[in-house]
Amino acid sequence: MNISDEVLLDFSRKERTGLDEAVYCAGKSAAHIIEILEQVSTREGRILLTRLNEEMYVGLGEKFRQRLDYDPLSGTAFFPDTAFESCDQPDQSTSQQRQGRVAVIAAGTSDAAVAREASRSLSYAGETPVEITDVGVAGLWRLMERLDDIRSAQVVIAVAGMDAALPTVLAGLISAPVIGVPTSVGYGVAEGGQTALNAMLASCASGLTVTNIDNGYGAACAALRILRMSDR
Amino acid sequence: MNISDEVLLDFSRKERTGLDEAVYCAGKSAAHIIEILEQVSTREGRILLTRLNEEMYVGLGEKFRQRLDYDPLSGTAFFPDTAFESCDQPDQSTSQQRQGRVAVIAAGTSDAAVAREASRSLSYAGETPVEITDVGVAGLWRLMERLDDIRSAQVVIAVAGMDAALPTVLAGLISAPVIGVPTSVGYGVAEGGQTALNAMLASCASGLTVTNIDNGYGAACAALRILRMSDR
Amino acid sequence: MNISDEVLLDFSRKERTGLDEAVYCAGKSAAHIIEILEQVSTREGRILLTRLNEEMYVGLGEKFRQRLDYDPLSGTAFFPDTAFESCDQPDQSTSQQRQGRVAVIAAGTSDAAVAREASRSLSYAGETPVEITDVGVAGLWRLMERLDDIRSAQVVIAVAGMDAALPTVLAGLISAPVIGVPTSVGYGVAEGGQTALNAMLASCASGLTVTNIDNGYGAACAALRILRMSDR
Amino acid sequence: MNISDEVLLDFSRKERTGLDEAVYCAGKSAAHIIEILEQVSTREGRILLTRLNEEMYVGLGEKFRQRLDYDPLSGTAFFPDTAFESCDQPDQSTSQQRQGRVAVIAAGTSDAAVAREASRSLSYAGETPVEITDVGVAGLWRLMERLDDIRSAQVVIAVAGMDAALPTVLAGLISAPVIGVPTSVGYGVAEGGQTALNAMLASCASGLTVTNIDNGYGAACAALRILRMSDR
Amino acid sequence: MNISDEVLLDFSRKERTGLDEAVYCAGKSAAHIIEILEQVSTREGRILLTRLNEEMYVGLGEKFRQRLDYDPLSGTAFFPDTAFESCDQPDQSTSQQRQGRVAVIAAGTSDAAVAREASRSLSYAGETPVEITDVGVAGLWRLMERLDDIRSAQVVIAVAGMDAALPTVLAGLISAPVIGVPTSVGYGVAEGGQTALNAMLASCASGLTVTNIDNGYGAACAALRILRMSDR
Amino acid sequence: MNISDEVLLDFSRKERTGLDEAVYCAGKSAAHIIEILEQVSTREGRILLTRLNEEMYVGLGEKFRQRLDYDPLSGTAFFPDTAFESCDQPDQSTSQQRQGRVAVIAAGTSDAAVAREASRSLSYAGETPVEITDVGVAGLWRLMERLDDIRSAQVVIAVAGMDAALPTVLAGLISAPVIGVPTSVGYGVAEGGQTALNAMLASCASGLTVTNIDNGYGAACAALRILRMSDR
Amino acid sequence: MNISDEVLLDFSRKERTGLDEAVYCAGKSAAHIIEILEQVSTREGRILLTRLNEEMYVGLGEKFRQRLDYDPLSGTAFFPDTAFESCDQPDQSTSQQRQGRVAVIAAGTSDAAVAREASRSLSYAGETPVEITDVGVAGLWRLMERLDDIRSAQVVIAVAGMDAALPTVLAGLISAPVIGVPTSVGYGVAEGGQTALNAMLASCASGLTVTNIDNGYGAACAALRILRMSDR
Amino acid sequence: MNISDEVLLDFSRKERTGLDEAVYCAGKSAAHIIEILEQVSTREGRILLTRLNEEMYVGLGEKFRQRLDYDPLSGTAFFPDTAFESCDQPDQSTSQQRQGRVAVIAAGTSDAAVAREASRSLSYAGETPVEITDVGVAGLWRLMERLDDIRSAQVVIAVAGMDAALPTVLAGLISAPVIGVPTSVGYGVAEGGQTALNAMLASCASGLTVTNIDNGYGAACAALRILRMSDR
Repeated sequence: MNISDEVLLDFSRKERTGLDEAVYCAGKSAAHIIEILEQVSTREGRILLTRLNEEMYVGLGEKFRQRLDYDPLSGTAFFPDTAFESCDQPDQSTSQQRQGRVAVIAAGTSDAAVAREASRSLSYAGETPVEITDVGVAGLWRLMERLDDIRSAQVVIAVAGMDAALPTVLAGLISAPVIGVPTSVGYGVAEGGQTALNAMLASCASGLTVTNIDNGYGAACAALRILRMSDR
Repeated sequence: MNISDEVLLDFSRKERTGLDEAVYCAGKSAAHIIEILEQVSTREGRILLTRLNEEMYVGLGEKFRQRLDYDPLSGTAFFPDTAFESCDQPDQSTSQQRQGRVAVIAAGTSDAAVAREASRSLSYAGETPVEITDVGVAGLWRLMERLDDIRSAQVVIAVAGMDAALPTVLAGLISAPVIGVPTSVGYGVAEGGQTALNAMLASCASGLTVTNIDNGYGAACAALRILRMSDR
Repeated sequence: MNISDEVLLDFSRKERTGLDEAVYCAGKSAAHIIEILEQVSTREGRILLTRLNEEMYVGLGEKFRQRLDYDPLSGTAFFPDTAFESCDQPDQSTSQQRQGRVAVIAAGTSDAAVAREASRSLSYAGETPVEITDVGVAGLWRLMERLDDIRSAQVVIAVAGMDAALPTVLAGLISAPVIGVPTSVGYGVAEGGQTALNAMLASCASGLTVTNIDNGYGAACAALRILRMSDR
Repeated sequence: MNISDEVLLDFSRKERTGLDEAVYCAGKSAAHIIEILEQVSTREGRILLTRLNEEMYVGLGEKFRQRLDYDPLSGTAFFPDTAFESCDQPDQSTSQQRQGRVAVIAAGTSDAAVAREASRSLSYAGETPVEITDVGVAGLWRLMERLDDIRSAQVVIAVAGMDAALPTVLAGLISAPVIGVPTSVGYGVAEGGQTALNAMLASCASGLTVTNIDNGYGAACAALRILRMSDR
Repeated sequence: MNISDEVLLDFSRKERTGLDEAVYCAGKSAAHIIEILEQVSTREGRILLTRLNEEMYVGLGEKFRQRLDYDPLSGTAFFPDTAFESCDQPDQSTSQQRQGRVAVIAAGTSDAAVAREASRSLSYAGETPVEITDVGVAGLWRLMERLDDIRSAQVVIAVAGMDAALPTVLAGLISAPVIGVPTSVGYGVAEGGQTALNAMLASCASGLTVTNIDNGYGAACAALRILRMSDR
Repeated sequence: MNISDEVLLDFSRKERTGLDEAVYCAGKSAAHIIEILEQVSTREGRILLTRLNEEMYVGLGEKFRQRLDYDPLSGTAFFPDTAFESCDQPDQSTSQQRQGRVAVIAAGTSDAAVAREASRSLSYAGETPVEITDVGVAGLWRLMERLDDIRSAQVVIAVAGMDAALPTVLAGLISAPVIGVPTSVGYGVAEGGQTALNAMLASCASGLTVTNIDNGYGAACAALRILRMSDR
Repeated sequence: MNISDEVLLDFSRKERTGLDEAVYCAGKSAAHIIEILEQVSTREGRILLTRLNEEMYVGLGEKFRQRLDYDPLSGTAFFPDTAFESCDQPDQSTSQQRQGRVAVIAAGTSDAAVAREASRSLSYAGETPVEITDVGVAGLWRLMERLDDIRSAQVVIAVAGMDAALPTVLAGLISAPVIGVPTSVGYGVAEGGQTALNAMLASCASGLTVTNIDNGYGAACAALRILRMSDR
Repeated sequence: MNISDEVLLDFSRKERTGLDEAVYCAGKSAAHIIEILEQVSTREGRILLTRLNEEMYVGLGEKFRQRLDYDPLSGTAFFPDTAFESCDQPDQSTSQQRQGRVAVIAAGTSDAAVAREASRSLSYAGETPVEITDVGVAGLWRLMERLDDIRSAQVVIAVAGMDAALPTVLAGLISAPVIGVPTSVGYGVAEGGQTALNAMLASCASGLTVTNIDNGYGAACAALRILRMSDR
């Protein structure tokens, strides 16, 4: 059995769900990822890579690295690097409308990688999200200062680790859909993100929904499902 | 300290978040709930009660029971019973537009109570959701037969216990926002709903978000946030 | 072996730790509790009973019930019922000084039983705590309105279940010692209080310390240790 | 105590259980593994090594590496490399009958290592399994396209991580025995494979049985027990 | 929505998987179960009920109880009570062949209810299993005395709680497929069955597969999948 | 978005809570930490860094390392290195009063790093704590010998891993506030510190409060809240 | 299958292990227990029943109750009630030697039931243990006062719930074998006894071994193994 | 504070408990260990080091390595290397009596390191234990062949990972005290040893006691407590 038999991309996903297929790279060999890129290349498609760390990125070789738009903080890559412009990209007038429809808000600088995964995934799909960082509720005034910006978004993604109180406070202050993304940041009982996850799920604020720990990409997809339903 | 000092309703929640306050009754005494209803009555407001089991309902006394629209399966009550018509209720033309905007889908009949909590909460807010039950993926054809109905909804709430594979399969087939509600139905490793919750969070389908176990009310609120953003 | 051999009270605890012995009644038989009360009676001492539910209270018999100052919400009892005045009770001038030195703040009405256990334990020791209820952070304004009252206390006990965001927000706003008491209130991932406990431990607010779940009595003791050190 | 005293192979296992002994190499020193190979060599036996990573493989030295049929993806090795032909290997006519009796199905390419451990273990025992990869249920059509191939197998091994919905959907579609193998692939709540394991155990499809996480070898043994009982 | 809309039986399951639909009654209302029985009655079908405790059984009313073959120890019922003879039941010659093809072995008398669920489910499908009880490995001789009986079965179901060492010892002694069923029997770390489950999954005996805790019905289905594949 | 947009220090924290902001460095990039130091430098402020391991320290470059007072055992750094004298530092007479107000007590030498984090954080705030190490209760005499020293402190921080019996024994012997800090030291069930944490929370000694695992900094902040309240 | 087929007592256990068989009654029906007593009666043997609560005891009927020596606190019963004298009972001179060879020490009165299970099991085997109660380490002097009594025992059983610090302190003070029995007494993180169990396992005192939670009977058996080895 | 202040050895432990102090090296710095060795040297004492891995051993420097009797498999060292002969060592006649009083039995070769820690700790105290390896119960005959050797020991230490069925089977066959040591060997649900630990605690064999995971040293100490009590 050779590698091309082992890779079976879901090219019809976009038609069914409105979302392009993305490839989760953690645990995959360079050979598997290269095979995927070649299949995409052959079909003149495009694809989003997530959880591509720098060692794996280097391992893909010069040829493929040149065609990737890679962001090391979030570990995301667009393939081809013109993917962003070619397929799903709106024309300029639409582009303005897509400015700031999603706000990606992170409680601390340690949550930046996950927040960036969300905003990069949104960019790949033609959105221009607003990013707001370091507004954890232990210093409430920072959040309050930005509340007007946040209220102008149509969907809010709230990224937080530790005790993850940010999404609760936020969802109590605004009316837009709020998607909580717990992060694995922290130590002791916070390590791995289970506490952040549970705190978001147990939130006493109404209508907060949650993704898996560190799943910035998933939150972006959920936001896109909402926006596209609204665009219909 | 008397009871009226202990109850401090959040009457401005609607202005901030677009959602009325609801009262989670489990663990509250009859005296506390009655105090709440009296405060609401005085302000000529309305309120949604959740997790009000039959014993508690009986304990509220004849006077209040007469003014409640109570559903025993879901343990929800509208107060006053005319609440549904009076406040948030759309006129007839709007009412038609609100027909079927949310689909509430339950994997098995054991999930019916949670699904009903979601649909009752939606009704309270003026929506008329579609309910589809017993479409678990161990018998895929049942889900496939209803796929067109589901695709016509703007938001889908998928309620499932045990291994909770339904939301994953569903989110792979449709483009609307999908909100997963794990239920505590089951035995062995499924007991309490942690497995269903984790399976939804770990879903390989993109853009599925999740609420706390058995939180049908929360899913309804999340759906309302989406619809109202879309209505803006 | 008869029961009096099985009960060995720690009558010197007060000298060592500044705190009277208290008896945790859950899991003890009526015979054991009565033996304890008789030993205390013989020594003309006094004692605080905690986790004494109504069934157990009734089981103690008329003779002892008459001499108990019992509060059913918190399940606490003072023995003898004059205990409060006799031993540790300050004279009037001191009494005024002890007014409001501790603020006991509960996020929701469901947390009232645990908050009351804390304030009753403080009362037993001669303090007159301030109680503030229903100020959860999903409706921030309620907390903000009471901030001046809270800031005038020397120690703050913050009682919260679910995602327990209240102590974090509070500890970010005030400079007094804050003792968090997680409660077992809630369902799904919140059930039993582990999520509330972990959220408090993982708090991003500095200098918050925590007790066991539902341990209002322990929080009161910690507050008393602080006040007495300060009184030295 | 020298090493040969510490190794006590179970050479009679085949007679009792129909399965050759295999050696789980993780956590064993090179000296221990070499001692095992020498004992096998002396008895002119053969043995299957599992969880032999590349570093350990190199550490066995040239002499033994030459006599091993090693597969790095799965970390399995046959000793001697002619083991496959010599002992349990059927003649040609039987060989054809053993073609495709087991289908090894993996939800994603990240599950390939575990699936390969299963198919290598089957090959070692004379079976020629069918391998099908990348048929996760988030893109159902991929599984449906291969259903006829799967139905022609006598035993199905379904390998999946994350939410592991594949075995449930599969067991609802076919009548053959289905053995689920959860994998440790994933992040957040999926990390380590506990969620995949629990989802399989809680499956609402009837008659699915499960092995330990990542235990491809164990699934192969279970399949062999079934086939040999059927061959009797 | 009335109850008949909520129940959607999977009548084609038998064609797809070879197994009749069964109804897990825990958590279902009497109304739901009665609706199911009526649908089955109308189609002149038959159905197996599991987890039907005595209180629920009584609640079904005289009319349905008369038509049920109910076993209180296992909480199973055949509907109609002639179900056993009518549908899947072999003629006499086949019946003899189906004698003792499955051995259901329980470590202790406390495991009897789960073992009985397995054997009743097998009986419903026309098998006549052998039951062997009280052969836990703390007294090995009891198991050894019955080894010949066990070896004559084609499939073995091993039911055990606590440390669940029985399936491991058994799978090391015989060559037939062994399906482990952990039970929730026990206290302390054994309570709920997680220890028994994990011990079976971690078994050092090769080729043991496992079901959910207390899932005697599932083990029976797995055994039937094996036997029917073998009968093809 | 450049890095200076991502960092938003809470410079008003001191006014609100009496505690300077500190920066938890684990998981932050060198670029983020340098940005923070530069913002502090610009404002002529000072800051405490925690969880700064040696590799990260080296990565900050010569320029910043020169201005840091770094302690490798605890991973803490004062910035600027004159911070200690400049801001919060009392004059000499106050300094004497601040000698020994806090006792930091560690059960074993393996707990030294966490104990040092606490004492360094106290030093940064102008306290001169007493450190007592290796007084675990398996050799009670060691603790008893130091009891007078401990009793002269106003607040006690008790640091312990494994079974963490030290804080319980200690809190039973003294009247000052006791803050328990569980450590992640240990193996098997002790690994990661959950057992130590739970043992402290479940302590039968009254009035012990607890921080997150390994949170020496948090314990110091709690002690400072108490001392400053007492100083008012 | 009738009940006598389901019960298979291990009558040879005494020869193999030196310990009589005992019957764990929780989860067994009255019919099963009666069958056991009848088998024992027929063989003129004797047996120890554990976890026989009062409801079950009553359910055995007058005939068997008369022949049982039943202790409700521990839920243990000797059958026949003369069992104690008849079989294993030493003559008077031996009896004196068996006085106080085991000390059963309980941290609190809430642990009395488990401690009693241990001492009753020892009595059944001819030992006369010393019982010491209410010597938890939060009031160290109580333990210290009894240290000489404890040191005269050959084996010590230490029963404790909550943080279970007693066995650690004890094992640091004496040289005899110490067997820890965690109890399920407590609330919050202590509930169910997992914290007590883990604290004992993680003890920094050397040579403490542990039984399952609430397993007083098991601790007695371990003590008997030690004493009988020593008696050889 | 310099390092000699941080180290406070418990030199009187031997008098109290009959066991020398041992030093658990994991997590300690080389400086701490060297300080300990120097204190021991000054007092002409001796000490046992455990969990000293090879990297740490090398880090102690030539001077100390020469005086250590180091075993890399178990990570144990005797200091001084003549410790074994000098202090606790019996004369020749006693030595023979101490031959084989303890049997250390390991289920698999992967458990060898933990078993060796136990036997090295026993050797340090003057015992000469018997070691038996690779007698897991999946191949029962291996254990049965060695049963006579095992029965001649006065105390048995049973070391096992995975499902840890060995101690249960063993304790059902012999009358001596059996101390179970779970190991962290394994993968999936067995990883880290929690399953092995729980299986031992839940054992249906009577009188088995257990140590922490991988705690060979603790098991040796427990065995020594028993032997010394018996020697009195």
